[in-house]
Amino acid sequence: MKLGLIGLGKMGFNLALNVMEHGHEVVATDVNPEAVDRLSREGAAGVSTIAALTEQLPVPRVVWIMVPAGDITEGVVQELKGLLSPGDILIDGGNSNYKESIRRSEELKEKGIHFLDVGTSGGMEGARHGACTMIGGNAEAFAHVEPLFKDICVENGYLYAGESGSGHFLKMVHNGVEYGMMQSIAEGFEILEKSAFHFDYEKVARVWNNGSVVRSWLMELTENAFSKDARLEGLRGVMQSSGEGKWTVETALDLQTATPVIALSLMMRYRSLEENTFSGKVVAALRNEFGGHQVVKE
Amino acid sequence: MKLGLIGLGKMGFNLALNVMEHGHEVVATDVNPEAVDRLSREGAAGVSTIAALTEQLPVPRVVWIMVPAGDITEGVVQELKGLLSPGDILIDGGNSNYKESIRRSEELKEKGIHFLDVGTSGGMEGARHGACTMIGGNAEAFAHVEPLFKDICVENGYLYAGESGSGHFLKMVHNGVEYGMMQSIAEGFEILEKSAFHFDYEKVARVWNNGSVVRSWLMELTENAFSKDARLEGLRGVMQSSGEGKWTVETALDLQTATPVIALSLMMRYRSLEENTFSGKVVAALRNEFGGHQVVKE
Repeated sequence: MKLGLIGLGKMGFNLALNVMEHGHEVVATDVNPEAVDRLSREGAAGVSTIAALTEQLPVPRVVWIMVPAGDITEGVVQELKGLLSPGDILIDGGNSNYKESIRRSEELKEKGIHFLDVGTSGGMEGARHGACTMIGGNAEAFAHVEPLFKDICVENGYLYAGESGSGHFLKMVHNGVEYGMMQSIAEGFEILEKSAFHFDYEKVARVWNNGSVVRSWLMELTENAFSKDARLEGLRGVMQSSGEGKWTVETALDLQTATPVIALSLMMRYRSLEENTFSGKVVAALRNEFGGHQVVKE
Repeated sequence: MKLGLIGLGKMGFNLALNVMEHGHEVVATDVNPEAVDRLSREGAAGVSTIAALTEQLPVPRVVWIMVPAGDITEGVVQELKGLLSPGDILIDGGNSNYKESIRRSEELKEKGIHFLDVGTSGGMEGARHGACTMIGGNAEAFAHVEPLFKDICVENGYLYAGESGSGHFLKMVHNGVEYGMMQSIAEGFEILEKSAFHFDYEKVARVWNNGSVVRSWLMELTENAFSKDARLEGLRGVMQSSGEGKWTVETALDLQTATPVIALSLMMRYRSLEENTFSGKVVAALRNEFGGHQVVKE
């Protein structure tokens, strides 16, 4: 298969290497010419524009976009809408909101272009050596590209989930589950850290990874992290987030579904971004008002 | 090694088979004579009392107790305190509260008996074919029995965690982490179930187990469960708990540590035990009082 790949960031670049390793050809572009050059040296046909990329692909074209969700994905999809032909297949492998993917699918369908929404998990390592993907969209279009998914994913590592949006929906919920699992692991180590015992966290994570109920890839990553910095003294506990956790909670609210753990995991991330909180000031002020309890002055 | 084993429930029985498979002799007893007979047929020396068990062991004796935490464990420990000799080693492999284990260790130390508090994870399968254990207590006593742990645990599956109580403390926190991970997985599937999409949950769990960030033993168990009952229609969402989650949250409170995910996981279990709630009645009554909103009458 000859695949067009747009976006050579951490995920896209590794995915390209994975695709080529399995005997497929890649025509690639990125806003960063250096990344295009680097991939060209690995055997890809690097081009400088999306238009040039579509010209180099046989019909039906298969184009995989791997760019940041939101406006950037939207811009690339709109540009491709003007360049692709009926029967072509456009794959969004990024972390787009599933509602956007449903809308894009409908817009592209008007031009006869198939759109597959693909959630990709497994991090850079997975993109490079075997990803996990969840695919939504037209079943025939999926059948056409299924050999590609078989090649680039680990065994049993891809799922055609059904109608448009289902791939990104599944990936969104996956990330919500990931938030909760990560927060739970983190709270466990927080208790160990505050306790009177003196644990070696790398060893704790290692024993928990061997035969225990909580053994998991996330616990393996925990072990790796503690092996590099035994008490994580080199970093601050600032927890960024990139959207899917928020969408998961928004979806839970839309569905009137109780998901306290995923919701609190998200809110603990937001809390971690603040040195000080207004809510903390309000509670401190109220304790002072009713009980004369001392406040910490600014 | 010749090991005394008290308690042949789901965990103890499998552990006994595991111990014997590695060439150790087992002298076993249980309140249920049928379990003792069954294990005797597998090659153990079955006895009907704890006193008889201690008589059959060479000194220094090594006795492993695997009985329910709390009063039953306490009774067995007190009985053994009168039967064991200085230098003997008593191992509590159950889910005892670490504070109790510290107290027992001190009481037994007065008689020269070594006490090891051992958290055991991995379920029945682990007990049978390779457990994960976390061990606290006297380092020399541990060194004496380390070959046993090496045999019955998976590779890298045991950790001498340090002073008395540290083994059960680590197991307690492990279980707290487990609560959070399970609740997070559960909330994810709840969102899938309430959504407009039609997912095959067994397939979802399978793809999440192959290459994704959330791959884990718990997700494998999720896959198993859905393979037997595609929508879990054969059971109710009643979530029991056995103590360690509560102790983890109590410990977090004692340490003034924010662990919202583990705490909410525990509370969602308690909530699941009630068909109706008084808090629900209070909120419904208040909405009726201030806004005339309808209530559902009993």
